[in-house]
Amino acid sequence: MKIPADELNKLLAAHFPDVIGKTMRVEKVAEMTSDVRLLYDDRHLRPGETISGAALMSLADMAMYAAILGTMGPVLLAVTTNLNINFLRKPRPADVTGQCRILKFGKRLVVGEVFMYSDGDDRPVAHATLTYSIPPDKNDKEASA
Amino acid sequence: MKIPADELNKLLAAHFPDVIGKTMRVEKVAEMTSDVRLLYDDRHLRPGETISGAALMSLADMAMYAAILGTMGPVLLAVTTNLNINFLRKPRPADVTGQCRILKFGKRLVVGEVFMYSDGDDRPVAHATLTYSIPPDKNDKEASA
Amino acid sequence: MKIPADELNKLLAAHFPDVIGKTMRVEKVAEMTSDVRLLYDDRHLRPGETISGAALMSLADMAMYAAILGTMGPVLLAVTTNLNINFLRKPRPADVTGQCRILKFGKRLVVGEVFMYSDGDDRPVAHATLTYSIPPDKNDKEASA
Amino acid sequence: MKIPADELNKLLAAHFPDVIGKTMRVEKVAEMTSDVRLLYDDRHLRPGETISGAALMSLADMAMYAAILGTMGPVLLAVTTNLNINFLRKPRPADVTGQCRILKFGKRLVVGEVFMYSDGDDRPVAHATLTYSIPPDKNDKEASA
Repeated sequence: MKIPADELNKLLAAHFPDVIGKTMRVEKVAEMTSDVRLLYDDRHLRPGETISGAALMSLADMAMYAAILGTMGPVLLAVTTNLNINFLRKPRPADVTGQCRILKFGKRLVVGEVFMYSDGDDRPVAHATLTYSIPPDKNDKEASA
Repeated sequence: MKIPADELNKLLAAHFPDVIGKTMRVEKVAEMTSDVRLLYDDRHLRPGETISGAALMSLADMAMYAAILGTMGPVLLAVTTNLNINFLRKPRPADVTGQCRILKFGKRLVVGEVFMYSDGDDRPVAHATLTYSIPPDKNDKEASA
Repeated sequence: MKIPADELNKLLAAHFPDVIGKTMRVEKVAEMTSDVRLLYDDRHLRPGETISGAALMSLADMAMYAAILGTMGPVLLAVTTNLNINFLRKPRPADVTGQCRILKFGKRLVVGEVFMYSDGDDRPVAHATLTYSIPPDKNDKEASA
Repeated sequence: MKIPADELNKLLAAHFPDVIGKTMRVEKVAEMTSDVRLLYDDRHLRPGETISGAALMSLADMAMYAAILGTMGPVLLAVTTNLNINFLRKPRPADVTGQCRILKFGKRLVVGEVFMYSDGDDRPVAHATLTYSIPPDKNDKEASA
């Protein structure tokens, strides 16, 4: 692990002030994995007393970002290139935890998956796979995209 | 078209009060298509003066929902089952329009795609494909595919 | 488990005579899971001595199908509606095993994931998520989600 | 266009001898687009007289590859990193054409979509989005992945 959860929360709160510390919190971070909690908030509710899909997608994205930073250290340059999410069950009106596991950490692309669970239920409410692109080193003269 | 854009905005605003009328607005809706605008807002900004991926994913989801309601009328029961998004270019700090086209409107599943464009640029910033599930009609004896 | 691997291989061989028994073999099947082996064959090779992506996609699809039949019995009606695959590492010229786990077995939709491994390497060469649609039972009066 | 369809068919046939000239044929290729035909063949049939999903996935992959070569010339190094496909309608027992359009041609990643149509039907049978990775220039000392 290149950065502990406390420090990562501070770092992310500086960059995503509307999200980290307000609607999400990194709970665990380690080499290739992370747990990020989506705090229950009326604003995430949708008709039928359920959590919005948008909130779950943000959660998946943040969990993956946290796992990347936990693996490569606080380099805030990775960008999401692809996200695929399956909504499996209606989340209950409660916190949701996103558990990320990185499947491949390449020099240019990082691929991971995130399982999302409502508090108190061990059946996933959603599952996402994500790809992040790691920009070429700034020192590399032939920066590309 | 089963419902005009004005009426759809009112309907959606009642169900998504934090979104419609605040951060998004349905601009056009017709049989199998919709245009939904993501209004530029500092809260959507991310490091690098760009729009957050979460805001784009919400936009894709809302554009698809609007196109479904435009096709089948104001039946608020469809739920997203899958969303796949590719982030193509860094959006500028400006409004983004999501243009949805439904590719298949089945009895049980609806599949569509959404192209997203920053105002003033005709190259897409993101592209999403989505699947919505239409719940069986309670009165329909032979609910089917 | 509703059907043992031997019997499932016979059943699938009757329906996919060019595949099962020739290029793939169900190795394990149980409630919600399966292991299917892609037998190494020169025809799957691609430039660079690697297995073709097409062969891996077929493997993922068959592994999911096997897991569905293992869970609901030999009802050959489920159809793939969505497949998303990330190619993670170049497979070696060797057998590849697809390990499927079903994440949600709904009345209408089944969602699962498949990890694929080259023989002798515990890092996945590919990861897929799939959705199958289960057609409504003709005899079931209230076919549902 | 960097290479005409005839020449591209010859090039691809040399690399994919079991596919090009046998089960598929590039029909058109241009800057950022291609049309590739999947030739009807009993081997692609599945129960219910339909084309296999595997054949459609291969078609999507080949159409994207053809469009990439049409855009950058005959450099056979691009590799698929992600494919997402939605199966929309049961294809008829007939040829299927995959029409590819590239949405972004970056230095490192190329993203495109492929619509697939059965001969004689203008409603798509399937739709795929794909990402290819372009390897770093061989002259680049710091080759990466």
